[in-house]
Amino acid sequence: MKILLDGMGGDYAPDEIVKGAIKAAREIDETVVILGPRARIQKSLDDNGWNGSNIEIAEASEVISNDEAPAMAVRRKKDSTIVRGMSMIKNGEGDIFISGGSTGALLAAGLVVLGRIKGIKRPAIAAWFPRAAAEGNTLILDCGANVESKAEYLYQYGIMGSMFVQGITGNTEPSVRLLNVGAEDGKGDDLHKDAFKMLEKSDINFLGNVEARDVIFGGTDVVVCDGFSGNVFLKSSEGTASAVMGLLKEKLSSGLKAKMGAALSMSRLRELKSVFDYKDAGGAPILGLKGAVLKVHGNSKETEVYYAIHRAVDYVNNDITGMIEDAIIRNEAIKKENSITGRMAEAITSAGGKFLRKSDSDEEDSEE
Amino acid sequence: MKILLDGMGGDYAPDEIVKGAIKAAREIDETVVILGPRARIQKSLDDNGWNGSNIEIAEASEVISNDEAPAMAVRRKKDSTIVRGMSMIKNGEGDIFISGGSTGALLAAGLVVLGRIKGIKRPAIAAWFPRAAAEGNTLILDCGANVESKAEYLYQYGIMGSMFVQGITGNTEPSVRLLNVGAEDGKGDDLHKDAFKMLEKSDINFLGNVEARDVIFGGTDVVVCDGFSGNVFLKSSEGTASAVMGLLKEKLSSGLKAKMGAALSMSRLRELKSVFDYKDAGGAPILGLKGAVLKVHGNSKETEVYYAIHRAVDYVNNDITGMIEDAIIRNEAIKKENSITGRMAEAITSAGGKFLRKSDSDEEDSEE
Repeated sequence: MKILLDGMGGDYAPDEIVKGAIKAAREIDETVVILGPRARIQKSLDDNGWNGSNIEIAEASEVISNDEAPAMAVRRKKDSTIVRGMSMIKNGEGDIFISGGSTGALLAAGLVVLGRIKGIKRPAIAAWFPRAAAEGNTLILDCGANVESKAEYLYQYGIMGSMFVQGITGNTEPSVRLLNVGAEDGKGDDLHKDAFKMLEKSDINFLGNVEARDVIFGGTDVVVCDGFSGNVFLKSSEGTASAVMGLLKEKLSSGLKAKMGAALSMSRLRELKSVFDYKDAGGAPILGLKGAVLKVHGNSKETEVYYAIHRAVDYVNNDITGMIEDAIIRNEAIKKENSITGRMAEAITSAGGKFLRKSDSDEEDSEE
Repeated sequence: MKILLDGMGGDYAPDEIVKGAIKAAREIDETVVILGPRARIQKSLDDNGWNGSNIEIAEASEVISNDEAPAMAVRRKKDSTIVRGMSMIKNGEGDIFISGGSTGALLAAGLVVLGRIKGIKRPAIAAWFPRAAAEGNTLILDCGANVESKAEYLYQYGIMGSMFVQGITGNTEPSVRLLNVGAEDGKGDDLHKDAFKMLEKSDINFLGNVEARDVIFGGTDVVVCDGFSGNVFLKSSEGTASAVMGLLKEKLSSGLKAKMGAALSMSRLRELKSVFDYKDAGGAPILGLKGAVLKVHGNSKETEVYYAIHRAVDYVNNDITGMIEDAIIRNEAIKKENSITGRMAEAITSAGGKFLRKSDSDEEDSEE
């Protein structure tokens, strides 16, 4: 297995990226291929005392920054780490691509170079969300790859998210819920009502709606949302957590009595912080592309890169891309069958409706 | 002025509602009219030692619960506190209606009995959101009155929110921003792009987009959002704040050393909690109805009701409903003028385009 790593993506590139690669490479047999200007990457490897054999360098002279318009940058910078990484995946020179670079550029390059899995309407960006009252994390998707949404996109996010969590955690039946304005069935706008009906008929473990306030307490493995409200969900949680922690620090450090108290409680507060620490989540996948892509946060350092490489090994070993391909084929077949059954029921109802009890035909209709 | 108060709305009705009414009535000259079963309300007044003259009771024998389908309940329960309250506003028997009852029923009864202000497409529910790093609160609307949205609704929310904040706080130029997936201009889906363009041309102090993570830090007086993402925004903030505070309490109370620390820091933590304390915000208005309606939280007690009554006095004294009426007329005129200017520019461009410099006609177009 070859794990491609964008050596120039993110705020602390390339040195922290290289450090993370070294730390992971010492523990695994797979090869890590770092993309970037060869001399610069080599220097960082030397500086960090690397003398192993399972790190390689692939030359890529350009970098796409966060300020560039993604589509334009991808077209122009053919020798950027991001475009090169995607091309290597496409050509079979690598099994997965990890990058802390521009999400927009990763998405654009993914679409242009790799393309979508057959049947997938839109790729989605997924993120791990922490749980306050349970072990593990919750996968949220889409987090903003697509601001315009259709019910079918959301339905496919559910399938993709379920496959990803199965592949990464080994949980064979992850629970999936739809982020909505209420937990009861039938809530929301047409988009979410329609997505609900489609998810309900899929073969994943769909358990209905979830309200935004309940996600953090756990109980759901995959939360499906349209890209706009997914983005609002993540960012408002982030803002609130950061505001509360900031206030807390401020309140605890003012006043002598409180200062003493704070000193005594500090170790507990550090534990608290680690609950909201995304470091070990190991990167957010871009799902739906014909190839495995993991995005790590732009401010990632050694630890985040290290975990992302470990997660990448699981990703490839469990062939999550293949799992998604199969799941889409399987669920397209289910959809087709439902549609045939639905049309047959309709025909029966309209032809022989008078012979059926009212409640029977009502039931058929309510499924539509 | 007569302030109508739903004596039976919310979890602690009628006793806590009556207590709040008594506390406020002792401070103001206005009359508070409590709606509910006369004997029950009178008993609560007696139990709480009321002997003043500016509290009246208006008989209303029915209560609409949160579990009832709002539209149906409003049609059936003509003698409910909510329907009676709205009817009294309509008939001039009261100036504002405060209720802790079902939001859906308030909205439905408001639409059926009072109707919308001329020109208003949809009423909106607004809520006060706390600020971590600045004084005061931020008004968020719509918080879920309308899950289906059009750009014009959002544009009108901006105008209504601006008028409400002006009327309540005396700030004559409250800043207004649009909740979006990025702070830069041009972000979001078509709905938000279109709403942005309309808000930009209004006469309110519209300052562009705001990201969900930044709202809590202050800097904006009114945040406009579509009802779906407004709901997600509020509930995810609520969930995160509650999770962080819960974890904190748990972490601080486990372990002897931490317990000592916690005891010392407790007073500081209480201060922190008060930052996220909505108690004194004084109710969330339903804006856009032909009459003033304040919704207080279902778990409101004496203090919340007390503050809501005080806010209601400001609401009526500043004639916020009238301010909204005027603002809508004013901004409809601006829209019409823009549209005429736009069409004239178009005519000039198509007729005499060759005589204009390219950049001139471009500028006109980009405004559309």
